[in-house]
Amino acid sequence: MATSATAHKKLLSVGTKIVAVGRNYAAHAKELGNAVPKEPVLFMKPTSSYLPNGGTIEVPHPLSSLDHEVELAVVIGRKARDVSESAAMNYIGGYALALDMTAREIQASAKSAGLPWTVAKGQDTFTPISSVLSQAMVPDPHNLELWLKVDGELRQKGSTADMIFKIPFLISHISSLMTLLEGDVILTGTPQGVGPVKVGQKIDAGITGLLDIQFNVEQRKKTKSS
Amino acid sequence: MATSATAHKKLLSVGTKIVAVGRNYAAHAKELGNAVPKEPVLFMKPTSSYLPNGGTIEVPHPLSSLDHEVELAVVIGRKARDVSESAAMNYIGGYALALDMTAREIQASAKSAGLPWTVAKGQDTFTPISSVLSQAMVPDPHNLELWLKVDGELRQKGSTADMIFKIPFLISHISSLMTLLEGDVILTGTPQGVGPVKVGQKIDAGITGLLDIQFNVEQRKKTKSS
Ligand SMILES: [Mg+2]
Ligand SMILES: [Mg+2]
Ligand SMILES: [Mg+2]
Repeated sequence: MATSATAHKKLLSVGTKIVAVGRNYAAHAKELGNAVPKEPVLFMKPTSSYLPNGGTIEVPHPLSSLDHEVELAVVIGRKARDVSESAAMNYIGGYALALDMTAREIQASAKSAGLPWTVAKGQDTFTPISSVLSQAMVPDPHNLELWLKVDGELRQKGSTADMIFKIPFLISHISSLMTLLEGDVILTGTPQGVGPVKVGQKIDAGITGLLDIQFNVEQRKKTKSS
Repeated sequence: MATSATAHKKLLSVGTKIVAVGRNYAAHAKELGNAVPKEPVLFMKPTSSYLPNGGTIEVPHPLSSLDHEVELAVVIGRKARDVSESAAMNYIGGYALALDMTAREIQASAKSAGLPWTVAKGQDTFTPISSVLSQAMVPDPHNLELWLKVDGELRQKGSTADMIFKIPFLISHISSLMTLLEGDVILTGTPQGVGPVKVGQKIDAGITGLLDIQFNVEQRKKTKSS
């Protein structure tokens, strides 16, 4: 059926949450000076932060750069609550490539004050994302090469094989805490090589052999009416 | 029109995010040993954590209690981005009473480790909420008495007049960070008196003269299939 074969394309528009995993690659945890976690570090991003391929990432004043984190996005296909690891893959509706854009200075002050990361992670355009690939197009999500370039220079390249917590565990664990719904996204963490991308630069990123995405980075123009 | 007069009743079902404000009453910030913030402390809860009036709050194993925080919920009526304080009230679709249930021990370890509050705040049933009152029913949202009882004993009573950051400022500030959409909720913080509610106890809470809500508190029964 055409409907079922293309259903994955509409998933992001019906989703209501993004659950992001921090420090899920040992080399990246280390580069930020963090311990490798004993259980997944979870935080939320709003779906209002999505930016489709080709869009412009907006850097809010007074910042002049954001950090890039290239990540595999797991898109949930149907309601999942208390799902076992063995059944978890049946709840996937597709995959996408996303950037977990991060205002690192804001995150650093939040961390030292024991405060949430919402402002550092959740602003509009802070989650650039590709279209959704069907599960059939991604036979092994733990054997994908993710890469990211800034102005043509390679900054991140890593394999999803190096995730500390694998996808079935993440789905099982998160669904034991909160119901995952159709279109919800799990951002599975970033491999090493994160760093700043400045206003005026361009980002290319991809999953080798499957897709690539491009984004401009510009200063946000605030249009508050008074 | 009947449609417009009852539109507020469906808002929660179309919303995609809950933006919660921490430490927005000076007396509550103080009781938890926190400084009064210079700008709003923001964190996110998923809409999957809603629990309608009359439901059962589930305390996850191995905890035997959660902390109650009674809060005024501002429900957004239409898309809001970079809204000025003077225009902010026009974006409200209604009000509700909510409980920001909190696993305080989990939040405390997260805070000292510089980690997000998602697991402490975002689990299913952690946002019990009333039905939505229309704006017409709430002529002055900064002059409401919020109260909460556990097994009939008064634990929290406070006035929304004591909010540090008022509703127009919150809408303006949050909408300068992220687009607020129809049905999104801002939890405006809790007055003093927070504390544990144990498995087996009952919560009553209300906005004096406007509404009241009731919830049971039980141990969560995990039904993971393997
Ligand atoms: Mg959400
Ligand atoms: Mg990340
Ligand atoms: Mg609260």
